[in-house]
Amino acid sequence: MPSAFIFDAYGTLFDVHSVQQRCEGFWPGKGLQLSQHWRAKQLEYTWQRSLMRRYAPFSQVTREALAYACEALGLALDASRNDALMAQYLRLELFADVRESLAQRKGHKLAILTNGSPDMIDPLVAQSGLFFDAVLSVDALRVYKPSPEVYQLAVDRLGVPASQVGFVSSNCWDALGAKSFGFEVNWINRTGAPVDRLGFKPDRILKGLFEL
Amino acid sequence: MPSAFIFDAYGTLFDVHSVQQRCEGFWPGKGLQLSQHWRAKQLEYTWQRSLMRRYAPFSQVTREALAYACEALGLALDASRNDALMAQYLRLELFADVRESLAQRKGHKLAILTNGSPDMIDPLVAQSGLFFDAVLSVDALRVYKPSPEVYQLAVDRLGVPASQVGFVSSNCWDALGAKSFGFEVNWINRTGAPVDRLGFKPDRILKGLFEL
Repeated sequence: MPSAFIFDAYGTLFDVHSVQQRCEGFWPGKGLQLSQHWRAKQLEYTWQRSLMRRYAPFSQVTREALAYACEALGLALDASRNDALMAQYLRLELFADVRESLAQRKGHKLAILTNGSPDMIDPLVAQSGLFFDAVLSVDALRVYKPSPEVYQLAVDRLGVPASQVGFVSSNCWDALGAKSFGFEVNWINRTGAPVDRLGFKPDRILKGLFEL
Repeated sequence: MPSAFIFDAYGTLFDVHSVQQRCEGFWPGKGLQLSQHWRAKQLEYTWQRSLMRRYAPFSQVTREALAYACEALGLALDASRNDALMAQYLRLELFADVRESLAQRKGHKLAILTNGSPDMIDPLVAQSGLFFDAVLSVDALRVYKPSPEVYQLAVDRLGVPASQVGFVSSNCWDALGAKSFGFEVNWINRTGAPVDRLGFKPDRILKGLFEL
């Protein structure tokens, strides 16, 4: 039994696609497509910038990904829409099974390990009312997941050996990066996606946090 | 005027989507979608494996991306279809303007700098009949683009300073990785895509190699 549970934030606890409704309001018929493009580009930029050794905080990467996605889809993004969409990221919805699942883990150390920079993740966690022993951001290292240094950060900060960490992510590549590092890994596969082919398998594949 | 021109291979000289017809033959109506999924996952895996420090050669990554893409789209991939599709990568079509553009660069050093492992890129270049002074693969470094070490490899092997290299890629993130490293960069934007937001701009944006 793990002595600590470490959760990814975006996509795992918080639904990044809860921005979709706001996108849809601005550009009817385009909400889903924009939300998907925005998220895909946001992740690409984290990997590319990490490899280029040109880190920028997740807030900047997220803004830049939004600008790209809007241009790619031919959607005019003015300052007020940009601000409104970025503000949505500070109040993403929790998935329905988060509160109950965290409540059941009481007695364990609970932490978030996230790509989110403090200017994004701290207000998001604060407004959620969730409690964690630690909210750890890659921003301290200036490199993004799935770099092993990121998972090492959690070991160092929580003082728990990797073998006693239960890692939880809905992003398969994040789960496999954590597995490659040495965590026990739960991949939350809400959409029935295939397992990524990265040389590792998750220890458990769950349909939601309710199965944890 | 650059003293050497360094070309990306996949997507720049060779059309990765020339696999589409073969995909379409196996799964009518799904050729385009499979080709796009396959390519997108192939690139993701190069970035993720590089960050995880779990390099695998591009031939393996390409095969794994194909397996993922087929599963994601619900397409049954048996060994013979797998082999046939992988074989297509050894005879990708050249873009129409490649031969003429390379002929016009005579007198300069001409090289390929590619993610492709030797087992993929060497047969592909051989069957094309194109001549290069060097075909350089990231496989020597076991890390993928856009890591700066990759662009440094070209400087080291060609003996040309970065400032005298004209780099040519249709992959915007690759062009910007090369720009971040210090090359003079031509981004071949055949599809009218937006410039990626990675903190750099290409020196020139061209509609094809014919504009070089």
